[in-house]
Amino acid sequence: MRTYLDWNATTPLRPEVKAAMVEAMEIGGNPSSVHTEGRAAKRALERAREQVAAALGAEGADVVFTSGATEAAAMVLAGREVRCAAVEHSAVKAWCNATLPVDPDGVVTVDDPATTSLQLANNETGVMQDLPQGLGSSDLTQAFGKVPFAFNWLGVTAGFVSAHKLGGPKGIGALILRKGTDMAPLIRGGGQEQGRRGGTENLIGIMGFAAAATAAQRDLDAGLWAEVEARRDALEARLLDIAPQAIIAGKGARRLPNTTCLLTSGWKGETQVMQMDLAGFAISAGSACSSGKVRASGTLQAMGYDNQLSQSAIRISISPTLGDDQINRFADAWEKAYARWRDRNMAAASV
Amino acid sequence: MRTYLDWNATTPLRPEVKAAMVEAMEIGGNPSSVHTEGRAAKRALERAREQVAAALGAEGADVVFTSGATEAAAMVLAGREVRCAAVEHSAVKAWCNATLPVDPDGVVTVDDPATTSLQLANNETGVMQDLPQGLGSSDLTQAFGKVPFAFNWLGVTAGFVSAHKLGGPKGIGALILRKGTDMAPLIRGGGQEQGRRGGTENLIGIMGFAAAATAAQRDLDAGLWAEVEARRDALEARLLDIAPQAIIAGKGARRLPNTTCLLTSGWKGETQVMQMDLAGFAISAGSACSSGKVRASGTLQAMGYDNQLSQSAIRISISPTLGDDQINRFADAWEKAYARWRDRNMAAASV
Repeated sequence: MRTYLDWNATTPLRPEVKAAMVEAMEIGGNPSSVHTEGRAAKRALERAREQVAAALGAEGADVVFTSGATEAAAMVLAGREVRCAAVEHSAVKAWCNATLPVDPDGVVTVDDPATTSLQLANNETGVMQDLPQGLGSSDLTQAFGKVPFAFNWLGVTAGFVSAHKLGGPKGIGALILRKGTDMAPLIRGGGQEQGRRGGTENLIGIMGFAAAATAAQRDLDAGLWAEVEARRDALEARLLDIAPQAIIAGKGARRLPNTTCLLTSGWKGETQVMQMDLAGFAISAGSACSSGKVRASGTLQAMGYDNQLSQSAIRISISPTLGDDQINRFADAWEKAYARWRDRNMAAASV
Repeated sequence: MRTYLDWNATTPLRPEVKAAMVEAMEIGGNPSSVHTEGRAAKRALERAREQVAAALGAEGADVVFTSGATEAAAMVLAGREVRCAAVEHSAVKAWCNATLPVDPDGVVTVDDPATTSLQLANNETGVMQDLPQGLGSSDLTQAFGKVPFAFNWLGVTAGFVSAHKLGGPKGIGALILRKGTDMAPLIRGGGQEQGRRGGTENLIGIMGFAAAATAAQRDLDAGLWAEVEARRDALEARLLDIAPQAIIAGKGARRLPNTTCLLTSGWKGETQVMQMDLAGFAISAGSACSSGKVRASGTLQAMGYDNQLSQSAIRISISPTLGDDQINRFADAWEKAYARWRDRNMAAASV
């Protein structure tokens, strides 16, 4: 019996997403074909596009389906002089000058919004930014489905999202563009996506994405993430009770309702991840997107934490599918591991 | 009861592909995560990579999963001075100088292989090229699964493939690279695919691709495509019997076993596609990849056909799942439509 507390890394598929993808498997045509099979595929594609736009509050904006938020970021940022902060996901940071100031709670100061890319929420700490009007682009990946927002009200030109953070499949996402924004395609040929992105469309993934987006919106409206926040806050209170010297990164800022980034100076995050894994709990250390490499977190360094603190970080990211019981069992397991570590540590200190 | 004769545009999913994708839906982790769920996802990913490599005869080469052949082509060709011929797919032609000579059978002459991209088989005519040793890159998309070849024996540095042409899902493909080839990533961040392509991997699509590749290889080994070729040849003989003045583009060249590109001067291909669609048959006019736009085919123009002939082109592309009976019924329907067109045409001519 495993308990998955790594929702910000990726999410299991929702039942309605599986059903939508299985349904999509029966659509045999190519959306570019003009015959009956092609037109059926095209209709399914455009219906999915409307569903994703509706869930994002992006009606009337251009929803360009991509292989994920990482590709969407590359489409907007590659070859441009964009500024960002070091708290951005590596998919954004790879293309920009990460020089914007970050305060100890992880909040970024923007001076020129139009030439800036700023995430709505951080994947490691959950810290949310107030997006200034006129912002060039925003990585909406972690926020989408966890907090309510409407793209059309953000005042952002371009947004990046991925399906697999909200119960959809991996390998599909979208670039959301304010209507009529000029954008040279990164992947050319074929003329798909109104000429913005070549290549036959990932229809199964897209229909899964649409189902996930719709379901995520429904969950938000139903208040499920407010319950998540209450559970997360209770978990944090308990963790700090167990380890009073521990730090919750970004606790002073507005955060995603599901994310806890816990620093316990001297106790390697990597070690904690392995111990929790053996005990049946999936959590992560730093960003899980770095192909198994455990590197010091750029986000935590930018917030001013030293190496020892940064390397002690674990991320616990929960979801509406987890009940109090599962979260309490995690806290129990972490408490035991913490006690063992503290005892060893004290023994070592007294030698 | 529909009959699908547009295999080169896209293919329905194979049953074993659906099964593999449904199985993949239960793998909840992110391949980049180090916990149990992540490692299970990583194992599935690497197993799929080996299966695709084996089916391509690319053992030991680098298989980089992409969102399709179009992305793979962009990775290799964007920003480089590459030469190609006008018969290439638009995903390749978008990036290269399409100046290489093409003979009337669609065969391309290459002078400097290292700086050239040359397809193994054409999507519209099925015409196959003899790839010179030391070729820079090759679009293998249409050939993969229809004719036997081994990437490791082609003498090509980079190959592009897509799953949806061989019974796999749309939106997944691969760039095949000779071991150790240097290649700056087009999509950065995250470090996935050995740093060659950022973004969380499309695991459901990848497992579907692997199942499709394995099944396609098995079909080839079993001789199913030799049967397809015999059926295609019989169909072509019958079509030329019905319309003796019609032309089969590339008939003098080595071709894919399943493709017929038929020119009937004066009878618009677009009209034929719609008439056949109403009669229950899916075929295409020119390349089906151009988002419903019916444009004069660059391939046919390069082969020297005038506008009237090019615009009359239909493509019939069949598969091992079609029996003689279905192909004969198509020929019957085409014969009726042809007779109507010819009679109207003669009546108009005699006015």
